[in-house]
Amino acid sequence: MTKYNKITPEIAEKLQAIVGEKRFFAGDAVKDDFSHDEMPIYGKYYPEVVCEVESTDEVSQIMRLCCENNIPVTPRGAGTGLVGGCVPLCGGVVLCTTRMNKILSYDMNNLVVHIQPGVLLCDLAADALTRGLMYPPDPGEKTATVGGNVSTNAGGMRAVKYGVTRDYVLAMTVVLPDGRVMELGKTVCKTSSGYSLLHLMIGSEGTLGIITELTLKLIPKPAMDVSLILPFSDVETAIASVPQIKLANLDPQSIEFMERDIVDSSAAFTGNSVFPTVVNGKEAGAYILVTLVGDSEAELTVKMDRLGELAESCGAYDTLVVWTDGLKKDVWAARSAFLTVIEADTKLLDELDVVVPVDRIADFLVYTRAAGKAEGITIRNFGHAGDGNLHIYCCANDMELDEFKRRSKAVMDKCYAKCSEFGGQVSGEHAIGHAKKQYLHESVGDTAFGLMQAIKQVFDPKGILNPGKVCTNVEEV
Amino acid sequence: MTKYNKITPEIAEKLQAIVGEKRFFAGDAVKDDFSHDEMPIYGKYYPEVVCEVESTDEVSQIMRLCCENNIPVTPRGAGTGLVGGCVPLCGGVVLCTTRMNKILSYDMNNLVVHIQPGVLLCDLAADALTRGLMYPPDPGEKTATVGGNVSTNAGGMRAVKYGVTRDYVLAMTVVLPDGRVMELGKTVCKTSSGYSLLHLMIGSEGTLGIITELTLKLIPKPAMDVSLILPFSDVETAIASVPQIKLANLDPQSIEFMERDIVDSSAAFTGNSVFPTVVNGKEAGAYILVTLVGDSEAELTVKMDRLGELAESCGAYDTLVVWTDGLKKDVWAARSAFLTVIEADTKLLDELDVVVPVDRIADFLVYTRAAGKAEGITIRNFGHAGDGNLHIYCCANDMELDEFKRRSKAVMDKCYAKCSEFGGQVSGEHAIGHAKKQYLHESVGDTAFGLMQAIKQVFDPKGILNPGKVCTNVEEV
Repeated sequence: MTKYNKITPEIAEKLQAIVGEKRFFAGDAVKDDFSHDEMPIYGKYYPEVVCEVESTDEVSQIMRLCCENNIPVTPRGAGTGLVGGCVPLCGGVVLCTTRMNKILSYDMNNLVVHIQPGVLLCDLAADALTRGLMYPPDPGEKTATVGGNVSTNAGGMRAVKYGVTRDYVLAMTVVLPDGRVMELGKTVCKTSSGYSLLHLMIGSEGTLGIITELTLKLIPKPAMDVSLILPFSDVETAIASVPQIKLANLDPQSIEFMERDIVDSSAAFTGNSVFPTVVNGKEAGAYILVTLVGDSEAELTVKMDRLGELAESCGAYDTLVVWTDGLKKDVWAARSAFLTVIEADTKLLDELDVVVPVDRIADFLVYTRAAGKAEGITIRNFGHAGDGNLHIYCCANDMELDEFKRRSKAVMDKCYAKCSEFGGQVSGEHAIGHAKKQYLHESVGDTAFGLMQAIKQVFDPKGILNPGKVCTNVEEV
Repeated sequence: MTKYNKITPEIAEKLQAIVGEKRFFAGDAVKDDFSHDEMPIYGKYYPEVVCEVESTDEVSQIMRLCCENNIPVTPRGAGTGLVGGCVPLCGGVVLCTTRMNKILSYDMNNLVVHIQPGVLLCDLAADALTRGLMYPPDPGEKTATVGGNVSTNAGGMRAVKYGVTRDYVLAMTVVLPDGRVMELGKTVCKTSSGYSLLHLMIGSEGTLGIITELTLKLIPKPAMDVSLILPFSDVETAIASVPQIKLANLDPQSIEFMERDIVDSSAAFTGNSVFPTVVNGKEAGAYILVTLVGDSEAELTVKMDRLGELAESCGAYDTLVVWTDGLKKDVWAARSAFLTVIEADTKLLDELDVVVPVDRIADFLVYTRAAGKAEGITIRNFGHAGDGNLHIYCCANDMELDEFKRRSKAVMDKCYAKCSEFGGQVSGEHAIGHAKKQYLHESVGDTAFGLMQAIKQVFDPKGILNPGKVCTNVEEV
């Protein structure tokens, strides 16, 4: 295991010379924010210094210096992760990319955009729309950086139609741990030109290199969309409709599910009751929210009618069309508030972001609830019914922290084991960070985990880049 | 460099014991076919033995034995490649997967199919259709194995709408060079669970492991499709229309281009003149062939009308609708015959399979023709206008082989350099094999090429699996 060095005053001076004093922070000047991400349960780890970089060249200089001196470097975007991926477990440098936030250029002939990695998802999405284009990946956390999205291969709600972040990354500039700069990919969508280092880099959580520029594929903005709320008696019936919806050639943009409790909490939180709780005299226990896109009202009407008939045959109480802009806004505001609502209700929180085959979603939810109950932990959830990616939260309010951690871990251990049994994977989009390493290892097995470690060694023989994440272990400082 | 051993009678006996004598061939019993693929210009290399495997376990046993004894193993599917990827440069074992040709099961809830790697593309496509499903990747060579398609990340004509083979591989079973068996991926479409070994394996041309089972994503079969032929005066005008077509929100399934000479040859060869040569009194010099898919005739009619108007504004002489089954069959038969037609016309042949940004296609074609002319080599081509993937052939009839090779290499050197200058990549879908290694190295540079070599070393420290391909060098035997 590499023995890291501390940052000496001499090295600090060199780092400061690279980024300039306004973008260099050490000691007490390091904000508390840099010690954690958005999942506080995993603790705080402070960097020795923070460098806010503005260019590939600065990143390269920093990496060269830190590599020569065995100083750990942890890249960080907006810090919106949930598994500790950007937390500097071993101190050293936090290399913050949020100032690299320029949309560099659009290429309208090839439908791509060139950006710096610190551009926020919401900013890219909005800017693309002004050109009549859409950046399809749509993870729930809109204030994440796109570089962070690429590093975690974030998925989001539209994955069922458009795929995930991976599918939109055509090229990138990467700084390797020793400071060398490498270009991967080109402005082309089809390639078979050697091992795909590009795809290896996507989802590698800043452990193999630091992304400093991105070329992303865009698509023409769909002419119009409509959402439909399908209320069901319970989550099992709701989820059972999903394969039918997927088979029906409606090509939905998203198929989300939500249970009654989270809808009620969201209504209380936002003050908007957009999801009907009683339909034709029957209590709704769960909902499917489908979004369709199309070229014209005529085309969408045909699709809506077909979906309505299908939903009825699957046991939906009704099909509520969300067509007006105002109603759409309210529905998606309610949907987007789910995590905030859970956080607002809960003092102690931990989460699973598993992905299971679509037809195992309901069974898995039932299992997690029972596992939670056995440990006295409240389970809340919502997720992407179209792709099997579930966001499941272990919640408690009246419990000591250590007690919560112990019980929550017991729930996690059971649930990740069940996820493997069901043919699922550890993370759909939040990635591994340092919080989920054990479960990744258990899930993929020794052979694949060993290959990941050997690949890490190829890219980063000194182990200085984002240590302790994905597949490497460190002694925490 | 590893010193490989020859197969001794003792080892041959062990190999024969693994697969049984009916599926084991040595010496004169090895068919000539196993010494080459479909591009004869790259020479013949004979294996010492051929093993026709039928199971993961047999592959694992063979790899363990060969690894212990430093014997090279070259996996081979249907042998339809064009860059020598399945050719046993160093002798040893050819491990033939064509008997692993079972479609194992469909999972209609999750829209996936489990298959063995030796299933032919045409068989999978046809079988899926009988379930109302479509396997979207559609490379021109329908008798390739799907395992071969995955190993080269084959793209095909529908890539512009549906993406490439990579986008449909959810999971695989892999035998590593030392015989260990590894499962990668699951029946899920969204994952962020460690480095993507799955994506590293896709397109690695059988150099990192041998695929013995695949889980592939399917989609509901589109209700209907229609193709439209757009004749233009010349290839520059034709290609200039492509970005406009892509921006128009028509979501075409394919956008192919073809020049007049290849259309004429194809008509002479097939006896069917489906592409009009004179339109409204004007000679057509090039064509764009667009296929649209949709749910109903009404939906497609709206799209066709929009495409027609757009095509006219881009200088198309007309828009010819290919709607009837008979006409569709003729048009696609003509399109599918292009390579066969070139082969039939030509004694000496070599090819480029570059991919360039869509707006550089015409410039690149003009350049290649000039480069060919300078060396006295005839250039013929066709390709995928929607994604920039060009199939370009160096042809000659009255030339000595060595002279052709020398001149053809001079053309290639120039064209690959120009491709890099234009921001393209060495191969769109045919991959690297041993024929294109030099150009891959020049294109990606020392850093990326060195990382590929180090990754190969991680998976295959003895270098016994498919030696001399993608990024490794061997002394040819």
